[in-house]
Amino acid sequence: MRNLIRQSVNKMKGYVPGEQPVGTRIVKLNTNENPYPPSSVVLRAFSKMDINRISRYPDPLSTKLSERIAELHGCDRSCVFVGNGLDEILALCTRAFVENDGSIGYFEPSYSLYPVLADIREVDRKPVKLNKNFEWRMPADYRSSLFFLTNPNAPSGILYDKKTVREFCTEFPGVVFIDEAYVDFAREDCADIALELDNVLIGRSLSKSYSLAGVRIGYAVGSAKLIESLFKIKDSYNIDVISQELALAALSDVYHMKGNVARIRATRQNLVNALKELEFTVYPSEANFVWTKPSGIDAEKLFRELKEQRIFIRHFPGRPTNDFVRISIGTDHEIKVLLTAIRRIIGKVGS
Amino acid sequence: MRNLIRQSVNKMKGYVPGEQPVGTRIVKLNTNENPYPPSSVVLRAFSKMDINRISRYPDPLSTKLSERIAELHGCDRSCVFVGNGLDEILALCTRAFVENDGSIGYFEPSYSLYPVLADIREVDRKPVKLNKNFEWRMPADYRSSLFFLTNPNAPSGILYDKKTVREFCTEFPGVVFIDEAYVDFAREDCADIALELDNVLIGRSLSKSYSLAGVRIGYAVGSAKLIESLFKIKDSYNIDVISQELALAALSDVYHMKGNVARIRATRQNLVNALKELEFTVYPSEANFVWTKPSGIDAEKLFRELKEQRIFIRHFPGRPTNDFVRISIGTDHEIKVLLTAIRRIIGKVGS
Repeated sequence: MRNLIRQSVNKMKGYVPGEQPVGTRIVKLNTNENPYPPSSVVLRAFSKMDINRISRYPDPLSTKLSERIAELHGCDRSCVFVGNGLDEILALCTRAFVENDGSIGYFEPSYSLYPVLADIREVDRKPVKLNKNFEWRMPADYRSSLFFLTNPNAPSGILYDKKTVREFCTEFPGVVFIDEAYVDFAREDCADIALELDNVLIGRSLSKSYSLAGVRIGYAVGSAKLIESLFKIKDSYNIDVISQELALAALSDVYHMKGNVARIRATRQNLVNALKELEFTVYPSEANFVWTKPSGIDAEKLFRELKEQRIFIRHFPGRPTNDFVRISIGTDHEIKVLLTAIRRIIGKVGS
Repeated sequence: MRNLIRQSVNKMKGYVPGEQPVGTRIVKLNTNENPYPPSSVVLRAFSKMDINRISRYPDPLSTKLSERIAELHGCDRSCVFVGNGLDEILALCTRAFVENDGSIGYFEPSYSLYPVLADIREVDRKPVKLNKNFEWRMPADYRSSLFFLTNPNAPSGILYDKKTVREFCTEFPGVVFIDEAYVDFAREDCADIALELDNVLIGRSLSKSYSLAGVRIGYAVGSAKLIESLFKIKDSYNIDVISQELALAALSDVYHMKGNVARIRATRQNLVNALKELEFTVYPSEANFVWTKPSGIDAEKLFRELKEQRIFIRHFPGRPTNDFVRISIGTDHEIKVLLTAIRRIIGKVGS
């Protein structure tokens, strides 16, 4: 075949979608979704939706939704950008803030999309290796055009100290995108840093805390100059009419989200305690998942045995994640089923 | 401010969204939407939608939707790609098929997004100027990495001869993307060429013929090798659960679409006849709009005077489009209102 495809794309591996098992008797704790339904305001907005609107183009600027986000963050609408999931915004940042001879930085391990985005953009990857406890130490003289600072980080769930984040952002010569996809489950966030410094954006997702993974809405808040450049390069009508409406409804009921978050945090604590009793190594999670190193069983084996029982958790093969599993926080019942299964598996293994 | 933003993006103009007037007493003939509602199958799918699915991630591969598209085109699913609107697919093509030192070709005038996409990709624009009747003549030794061949073209509405398209695709050394956003309103299409040649894709939109502009679904069909590379670089979950469902419903009722298309074509013929009676120059349209050069009044003045009466058509300032207006085909009633207004304006001008 002729050289029709860009060489960098040709070299890339095909997209492998995450496991989305279907069926009724499944415990799905593998993709960090919210086990609770979205607000009744969302359900009402859906049932009252004027369906005739789907034959007309959506508002290209997601105006009402952006205004609500601006209100929530106490900022101007010019500091807000809405994307087709946070993933779209991450990709736009690689095109807005990185020259062809630039580079993209991120923690290792962290969200596995970042190196893929660097490859698609055909620029240098500049990973920053975390230490064996997944703590953050920045190498001296580190530079990159854009840095994805995931906080809380994934898959560790660790929240990095806000003072350190602020110092890093202040000194960093490029753009810092603080990926706060999980921050609603954490004790603090960095939105104020993004609204203060001209080189910083935060990214949020409605997928996890607002139970809207299927609707695809993420947003960025921060430096108006940076936000403006995202608008210049986005697809004209990036958010459909229904998603705009449902996201607006969700953000009008922040209390519902906070209630679900409180439940998930309580369940998280119970899971952490139970895993510690089993002598698993557990990292302090500020997200809606727990990162743990099993005791008495190999991580990958635990993952596989649970899967046989139709309980889905996540295992990332390879260094430095191979010895760990990531467990999304489900309902109390789901976590109970999981723990019973783990105890049985370990018992079986130990016998 | 520091050099945080990519220079090519910095130079670009901010995004200017198309006019989306709101209100009840408006005749909206400016953005090529379908004046008729989508199929009742779509409305039923919406009302029966299991809303609980919105808290889980969507199928990243839009499997069912892709299978239905493959069935419609009599091809394998590996020859189908679904995008968040056809615009997303156009943008992906610029990243999959164009090296950093490559170039992007398109007709001039044509869809105004193409040069913007070339700028975002920071590669050379290679426009092919149409003659004064908007006919297509390819310059000798023309080359580009990717060519957007819009057929029927916009804003002229002209359908280029299929034999010529096939010859061009066969000889062209790069990738040809035949943008068939309007082809459901035309007498023939080029899907078979895309399934035959390894360097060709066609692009379709559900926005116009299927009355789903608000839902954001487009798709590409053609060379499996090219399709595979689009999958490699797309956002993981590019289509939300509701849009997947509604698009699938729409494509299960092709007869409804064809019925609306027949109505729109009949109205188009009536409009063409009426404009010719007014001695307007009218181009042979194979799309859901008509491209015309007014007689007895300046195009821009006609556009403005209609707008004052809350009748919205489209005028593209600058050469070579300045002397023309584009009129989307509305209902018979809307076109009657438009024609009455045009006659009154011309009469007023002439008096």
